[in-house]
Amino acid sequence: MGKNKPSIPKGTRDFGPEEMSKRNYIFDTIKEVYALYGFQQIETPAMEKLQTLMGKYGDEGDKLLFKILNSGDYLKGINDSELQERNPLRLQTKLCEKGLRYDLTVPFARYVVMHREELQLPFKRYQIQPVWRADRPQKGRYREFYQCDADVVGSDSLLNEVELMQIVDTVFQRLGIRVLIKINNRKILTGIAEVIGEADKIVDITVAMDKLDKIGIDLVNEELRSNGIAEEAIEKLQPIIKMQGSNDEKLEVISNVLKTSETGMKGVEEMRFILDTLKNIGLNSEMDLDLTLARGLNYYTGAIFEVKALDTEIGSITGGGRYDNLTGIFGMPGLSGVGISFGADRIYDVLNTLDLYPKEAISATQLLFINFGEKETDYCLPIVAKSRAANIRTEVYPDKVKMKKQMSYADAKKIAYVALAGDNEIAQGKITLKNMVTGEQKLVTADEMIAIVAG
Amino acid sequence: MGKNKPSIPKGTRDFGPEEMSKRNYIFDTIKEVYALYGFQQIETPAMEKLQTLMGKYGDEGDKLLFKILNSGDYLKGINDSELQERNPLRLQTKLCEKGLRYDLTVPFARYVVMHREELQLPFKRYQIQPVWRADRPQKGRYREFYQCDADVVGSDSLLNEVELMQIVDTVFQRLGIRVLIKINNRKILTGIAEVIGEADKIVDITVAMDKLDKIGIDLVNEELRSNGIAEEAIEKLQPIIKMQGSNDEKLEVISNVLKTSETGMKGVEEMRFILDTLKNIGLNSEMDLDLTLARGLNYYTGAIFEVKALDTEIGSITGGGRYDNLTGIFGMPGLSGVGISFGADRIYDVLNTLDLYPKEAISATQLLFINFGEKETDYCLPIVAKSRAANIRTEVYPDKVKMKKQMSYADAKKIAYVALAGDNEIAQGKITLKNMVTGEQKLVTADEMIAIVAG
Repeated sequence: MGKNKPSIPKGTRDFGPEEMSKRNYIFDTIKEVYALYGFQQIETPAMEKLQTLMGKYGDEGDKLLFKILNSGDYLKGINDSELQERNPLRLQTKLCEKGLRYDLTVPFARYVVMHREELQLPFKRYQIQPVWRADRPQKGRYREFYQCDADVVGSDSLLNEVELMQIVDTVFQRLGIRVLIKINNRKILTGIAEVIGEADKIVDITVAMDKLDKIGIDLVNEELRSNGIAEEAIEKLQPIIKMQGSNDEKLEVISNVLKTSETGMKGVEEMRFILDTLKNIGLNSEMDLDLTLARGLNYYTGAIFEVKALDTEIGSITGGGRYDNLTGIFGMPGLSGVGISFGADRIYDVLNTLDLYPKEAISATQLLFINFGEKETDYCLPIVAKSRAANIRTEVYPDKVKMKKQMSYADAKKIAYVALAGDNEIAQGKITLKNMVTGEQKLVTADEMIAIVAG
Repeated sequence: MGKNKPSIPKGTRDFGPEEMSKRNYIFDTIKEVYALYGFQQIETPAMEKLQTLMGKYGDEGDKLLFKILNSGDYLKGINDSELQERNPLRLQTKLCEKGLRYDLTVPFARYVVMHREELQLPFKRYQIQPVWRADRPQKGRYREFYQCDADVVGSDSLLNEVELMQIVDTVFQRLGIRVLIKINNRKILTGIAEVIGEADKIVDITVAMDKLDKIGIDLVNEELRSNGIAEEAIEKLQPIIKMQGSNDEKLEVISNVLKTSETGMKGVEEMRFILDTLKNIGLNSEMDLDLTLARGLNYYTGAIFEVKALDTEIGSITGGGRYDNLTGIFGMPGLSGVGISFGADRIYDVLNTLDLYPKEAISATQLLFINFGEKETDYCLPIVAKSRAANIRTEVYPDKVKMKKQMSYADAKKIAYVALAGDNEIAQGKITLKNMVTGEQKLVTADEMIAIVAG
């Protein structure tokens, strides 16, 4: 081996059989729930034209896009002086016309515009695909990772927000993760900025408030001050930041504060509708109106939500919100939408930490036939076929090797039952079935074997 | 819109909801069968290091790899004279150190070598992921497409070949596609080249024989002649090319022809074992020993197989074979394997042509609640929740718009049932359920509705 030893690009991962089973369990659960609510799956290509991607994620995002070198003579259209200038940013648009998708939202917007003639609005789509970002790799941050999004576009109804909360609730109930769903509304935040007399500072205010959980009230206030928010405004903000009580109590207080802000009152009304409707339906998870929740404010225009696991410290495991004008960047204005995104990698970690994977979800082969040689295998193969026809995941050890090696294969793959057939079993038309957990052995017919293994 | 109108890179595709349902039906069927035989799923990153990929697919393959421009100042390590030389091939290895995977086999080999300490051999893995090739796009050929591979490595046993044939048989039986499985053996081809005295021309001979179906016997012979195969050898080849009869009859003839070739007789023996064992187990599909089947000869060393759909003309829809030394290129010699690859795009076309998709596989939402306004929706939402709890895929139309628009939404999404609740229904605590196929309407309770829709 030595210097030949292969490796993978930094920030990328291989997923082995056990990881894949666990990931599939998560994705399948989410997919089933999405489908239960009428969302339909789409997939878009990994590569998009750079003109589709550039300028959509800010300057930093443009840098973090993976760009694909043009095929053939990619230097053809570049003259000598351009080459000698050595400007990586300017040259890359000549060297590359494609890039890897950076998220699922921009490709979805592009999809909606390209397929608008054939789409039935409101369009409820979900999409589970990898995205790529040339971020500096670090613990828990990868250059290739899956996103798991659902969006409804073409409907302003708040029932969509309600449904997304139900989806969150159902997914985490099925996964066995207890969660708190935090909810806020961009319009309420706008209203707050208005009534404290700092309407133009809304971004600074919400960015600071968003940090309350992490840095505490004193540092939040310091940040507000350093952003030039008036002392009087900061004073007015304190009861809002510190607000306690039930959601109804908070709504009561905030609607008094926001009385003079039309936008703010619209936000209160939206919030009330969502929370009341959810109460009528009945959720398992608790909803928490959190006025310090902001999440990429410049993007969201209405409801904003975020989900936290209750039994482990890990930050947000799902988030989303209402946005306007998804497709405006592609020349199709006026389409509002609301979406949600499950953080698969973090959910994976939560399930591991809390040991919540059901055994069935990660069990592979159920039954292994030991290989004693050609004659014995000839006897076994029709029984094996029968076992598989009964939907039992069955293997035959392919090589006639030492019993010990075959048994340790069964152990390593956590196979629950092993079947053995030698002269004695063949003479009786039966097989010996060994339970690998209890060690118990039994001489049984093929049908009995199937009944036992199928449980 | 106009010039803003977005598009996707040539040779790539969007998959909409219906296409996704159909593709998922195919992939899920294959996955279930792979699992039934003890194969476990893995996934590898889309990006591999170029040193992993380069030189593995020939000069042409190197050109067709999509290469990813290095992040940051990608020109840093390139001096002026190298730049001015404008040699695209030489420069690209400096501009790019990563590429998109070209197939699933090389990443699998890399995976096996990297993870050899933790792998239990024989290792039965399957992998269903997209691959990328900068081929000239044409009908039915894409720059991004899914491969769907299963391989066993670390076992020389022919039982693996047998199992792969069973997998093919089971998958196509479940999909309802009648197929013919063609099988050959590289050792038999080697033996034939030996006994006709043209051992060093084996590649030319098999490449020509492989074309028999497409170009006919006369042009095959012409190609052999133009490759310098002796007239006498071509003469000897005729009965082999034209061979007819049952597999047993063909094996009888060929084993007489190959008597003097040790390698050839080994191939005959392997073929006999595989065919006899499959007969013992009992397949649905017919196996056809086809001595003109070659498939990428330089790669395969034992059994070679290919699957053809019987009821439509489309070429090969699945193929595979036995190879030696999968991981030798990465410094880990001596690992033999046998694999199979389902052609998802072609299977998709076959199922479309023969109209074989089961309705359940492509049906999405089962039940739509019409939106008459807030009061009515409040009444419906708990019933909707109940319906979903019974695993019925249910939607509420989110906006209170004209009935006609809501009904055409149901039509477009092929939703089988529509639920309506106005004052009358609310007063009675019931709903009106409309069957969208028959047009029949019924006043029912929530439980009755669930029973009807669940079928």
